[in-house]
Formats: sequence, C-alpha cells, structure tokens
Amino acid sequence: MSGEFNLIEKYFVGRQQQRKDVLLAAGDDCALVQVPQGLSVAISTDTLVAGTHFLPDANPAWVAHKALASNISDLAAMGATPAWVSFALTMPEPDEAWLAPFCDAFFQLADYFGIQLIGGDTTKGPLSLTLTVQGLVAPEKALRRDGASVGDWIYVTGDLGDSKAGLDVILNRELERKPFASELEQRHYLSTPRVLVGQALLGLASAAIDISDGLISDLPHILQRSQVGASIDVSKLPVSNELVQFVGNPEVALQYALTSGEEYELCFTVPEQNQGAIESALAHCGAKVSCIGQIRPQGTFDLHLHGEALNWSLSGYDHFK
Amino acid sequence: MSGEFNLIEKYFVGRQQQRKDVLLAAGDDCALVQVPQGLSVAISTDTLVAGTHFLPDANPAWVAHKALASNISDLAAMGATPAWVSFALTMPEPDEAWLAPFCDAFFQLADYFGIQLIGGDTTKGPLSLTLTVQGLVAPEKALRRDGASVGDWIYVTGDLGDSKAGLDVILNRELERKPFASELEQRHYLSTPRVLVGQALLGLASAAIDISDGLISDLPHILQRSQVGASIDVSKLPVSNELVQFVGNPEVALQYALTSGEEYELCFTVPEQNQGAIESALAHCGAKVSCIGQIRPQGTFDLHLHGEALNWSLSGYDHFK
Repeated sequence: MSGEFNLIEKYFVGRQQQRKDVLLAAGDDCALVQVPQGLSVAISTDTLVAGTHFLPDANPAWVAHKALASNISDLAAMGATPAWVSFALTMPEPDEAWLAPFCDAFFQLADYFGIQLIGGDTTKGPLSLTLTVQGLVAPEKALRRDGASVGDWIYVTGDLGDSKAGLDVILNRELERKPFASELEQRHYLSTPRVLVGQALLGLASAAIDISDGLISDLPHILQRSQVGASIDVSKLPVSNELVQFVGNPEVALQYALTSGEEYELCFTVPEQNQGAIESALAHCGAKVSCIGQIRPQGTFDLHLHGEALNWSLSGYDHFK
Repeated sequence: MSGEFNLIEKYFVGRQQQRKDVLLAAGDDCALVQVPQGLSVAISTDTLVAGTHFLPDANPAWVAHKALASNISDLAAMGATPAWVSFALTMPEPDEAWLAPFCDAFFQLADYFGIQLIGGDTTKGPLSLTLTVQGLVAPEKALRRDGASVGDWIYVTGDLGDSKAGLDVILNRELERKPFASELEQRHYLSTPRVLVGQALLGLASAAIDISDGLISDLPHILQRSQVGASIDVSKLPVSNELVQFVGNPEVALQYALTSGEEYELCFTVPEQNQGAIESALAHCGAKVSCIGQIRPQGTFDLHLHGEALNWSLSGYDHFK
C-alpha cells in the first residue's frame, strides 16, 4: 500500500454513514450509485486554488466549508437535493496538521446536508481542491436560468455584500480594526448553501441562480438565457448592519451588495401569481428574502436608486483579471 | 461577460452533439442528466498536475488524451458505458496556444467514446486538470474488485511496461537515441481505454481493475478486496518487442511490465467455467489478452519466473514518494 492510499484510508474512508443509494463508494475503480425513477441528476464542479480562492495560510476548516458550501450552493440553485460528492485534493505533501481540521469540517457540512463522499483523487502538486457534487431533482421542476418572463419579480435570499467585506479583511489585515471585521471574514468563508430555499422554490420560481460572481454578473446570466431584461431598485438590496458599519456608508454598502462574489445566496424570479405561495413556503424555511426588482423586456438592464439611474462603475469577479 | 466565460464559450461549449440523456449541459448552475431505469451510475475522478503527471511543456494534445483516457479507463474497469464528463481546468492564464490543441484532442477522444462534456470550471492557478467521468452499468453485473475466488484465472489486456519506458524517455531525453523511444513515449500518453473489453467481461469476469499504479500495486487491490491471494507466472506477462529492444533484455522488460504505471490496461479474473466464453467474447473486440496466473487462498502472493520465486525488489507508483 502506498502513502497515497494510507492518506485516503486515514482521512476519507469510513467517515460517514453509507447512503442507501450508494452501492459502492471508495475502494473500487468507480463509485456506483442508483438514481430513483423520475428524478434526474444535477451535477456541478468547482475548483478552489490556494492563492486564487483562498490564502495558503487560511484556516483549513474554513477552506473545507467554503469549498463544499460553494458547490452545494449550485445544487441549491437548481432546487436539487444533495446526494454525492467526489473530491480531488492536490497538495505539495501529505500535511496531516492541515488535513485533520479540513476533513472534520468537510464531513460536518457533508453530514448536515446528507451528502456522501463517494470517491476522488489525492495528488501531489500546488494546493487546490476540485469538488463534483451531485444531487437529485425532478427534471420538469428543476430551477433553470432560462425560465424568467417579463413581469416576474426578482428576489434574493439573505444579505448581500458581506462576503466582499470579508475578503477585504483577508487581503488587508489593517482592516481588522474596523467594526465587525472578524464577523465579516467568517461570513466570507462560512456561507450556508440555500438548499431548503431551493427546494421550496420548486414549481414556484421561474428561474434561479446562485450568487458566486456578484449579483451584477450573475443576474445577467438569467437575463441572457431567458432573453429578458430587468429593472433593479438598488435601495431594496438587503445589506447587513455589520456591512454598513464596516464600510461606513449605506451607499457603499449597496455597491458591495451589487458586486460581492462568493455570497452563495440565491437570486430567483417569481411569476406574480406565485408570489403569495412563495412567500408562505419561504416563511417555513426561516430564510430572509427580498424582492429587489422585476423582469423587463430584453435589452433593458436598469439599475436605479431613489428614482435615479445608477452611474457607478461596477464589475463582478473574474479570476483571470 | 468576464474573460473566464469567454474562454469556456470559445473552447468548450457547443463542440459536441448533445446526448439524449443530457437535459442541460453548460450554461446553468448544474448540468442535468437522466439515467435509464435499471442502470446505475459509475463515477470516477482523476487529477493530473503539471510537473507531477506530465511535464509542463508536454504536447497539450497528448495531455488531453492522457487525462481523459485515464479517467475513461476507470469506467472500462467497471464494465460501464461512458456517458458524461465534467472538466475542471486550472491554468496560470488563458493560454490559447495550449487550449486549442488540447481541446481538439479532448473532444476527439470524447466523441470516439460518446462521452459528453457536461460542465466544469476554469480557474487561475498552477496548471492542472481534474476530470470526473460518469458511465452507465447494470449494478448486478458491474465489474468490482471484490468478486475474485480461489481458482479464478488472472488475465491482463494488451502489453505491459511500455508506459514506463515512455516515461523514462520523457524524463531523460538522452534515451531518445534508444530503439523505439518515440513510439514508447507516445504509448505513455496515448493509451486506449479498454471500454469494449470491459463491456465484454460483464457477467463473465469475477473482478477487474485498471492498471494505473503498476500491476504489482493494482492486483493486490483485487486480492485485498476479494480476500484472496495470487500466483503469477511472470514469464507470461505480455511485453512488446519494442520494449524488449528499448530496455535491451527480456528480464528487464518483465520488471517493467510488473511495475509500469499509467498503462490503462485491464487486469481481471475469470472463473474457470467462463474461460471459453470470455476468450470468444474478447476475440470480437480484437483485444489481446494474456492469462498470467491464478487466484490462490488469502495470504499467498507468489511471483515466479521459470519455476523460481522472484527476488526482484519492486514497487509501484506513489506520487508522494
């Protein structure tokens, strides 16, 4: 047995209860899973690279949470129920002081969402993680990006902007002295994927996406795929009191809310006739939701604040920039 | 639209015919696929890191082939039919001179095996690739590692050892002058996953594995999972004439055959009563297979050559060593 296999055995195998639909997990050439009749499989892949998505000295438990939560968030945005995850870990050498807290946090979150690690790969190289999560959803109900229609209302979950403020702190330790700096740093790493909200939206929302690159970058994906436009009342963007205190000014907080990536909140659209049903379904999830605007005909993308068109220069997140 | 999305659009989207079971590929939060009733999903993940699994200046077309072929080989080892692949690409900057030949080769091999790219991620960082392939197989017939019984015969496909010789050339350019050096280098990169063989073995072989770390490392996975031992007649290991010429000596060629990793040939076990059926099924695939030994009671792992126990010091491949 090689060191590579010992590492997998020690940290990854036998850490979770076997799901009934998992016929074979680690230990063979492939994992083998079963899909209930009538459901389809939703699949998403995300990579996190040290130095690009997290600092190399970041708390490994937080990195684990961020990696898995961001991936589960893609399932949430489809309304899918999390089921299985494959995990490829590349690291310079087997670093047990890093792996132990990483795996504890990884399995804690995986267990919370009932998602089983079914396989992966460990390789030598610069630190990075690639996860492929899979979930189950009725295909006719799945929340896609292409279903929004003119007149639908646009909602977001939670508060927006905190993740970007947390990233400011991570990248500039002098900001630690600002109010709520450590809370915002934690929010950057420790988001909660909106799985229950996504499921509550099935059959009610017309389109959904998760906010990973910033609302200003992600909402246009819905608009493009649905061939529609939007009008957003920026004053309606939900911002936390902590964010306003941190940036020191409500207008800057709204700029953060528009551009903050890695929020892992959902943005979704709701036909007028489903508004009542959605608000009551979401009340059961205990999730905060805010109506921020309305779908308009294709070609419009109107952001306004207190009746004036925005003239801010904004952009979302691009790793290659 | 960010550069990240342009890259995906330009090189990865719309390059293939849509499979009928793919409801949604790139362009949403998740891909969405359907699984026929009665079949289960086989899933495997592999990472290739520049500097660990290939040299940074390796031919990008060959790297693409190696990455996808090695992953499809895991499906072959389960007897699964390839269906979908997710691809996470990390690179220092968008390098179109690398991406264009990489993608051409990637889609050529994907199309050959009818496997559709359904999603992935592109991120900035040191060059590496993580693929998650999925295939379909009847769960009661899937080729697992845990089904070998005492008395079963042990087979391998193809020739063994060429990949290691190719790696020698890659790591030491002075060996280019040796006979067949460039052929062996190509064999290292351009293996053919034994998908048809895997399917022909369904219901006939008792266990299977693909040779990725070297026969001497991979066969023990079958033995351990099946709680059996083995006796191998090393003189029966299939080696190419090119390998013998390259290493200059038949005995060294056999050492290569035992330890060569990244072969992506199959090693499988066959109950005596299925030998005739298997040999006739495999004749239809046009695949070379060799019987190299027999399953024995647990605790034995006997390698012999011309009647003598081997006293070679051998080991398989471990990235962390």
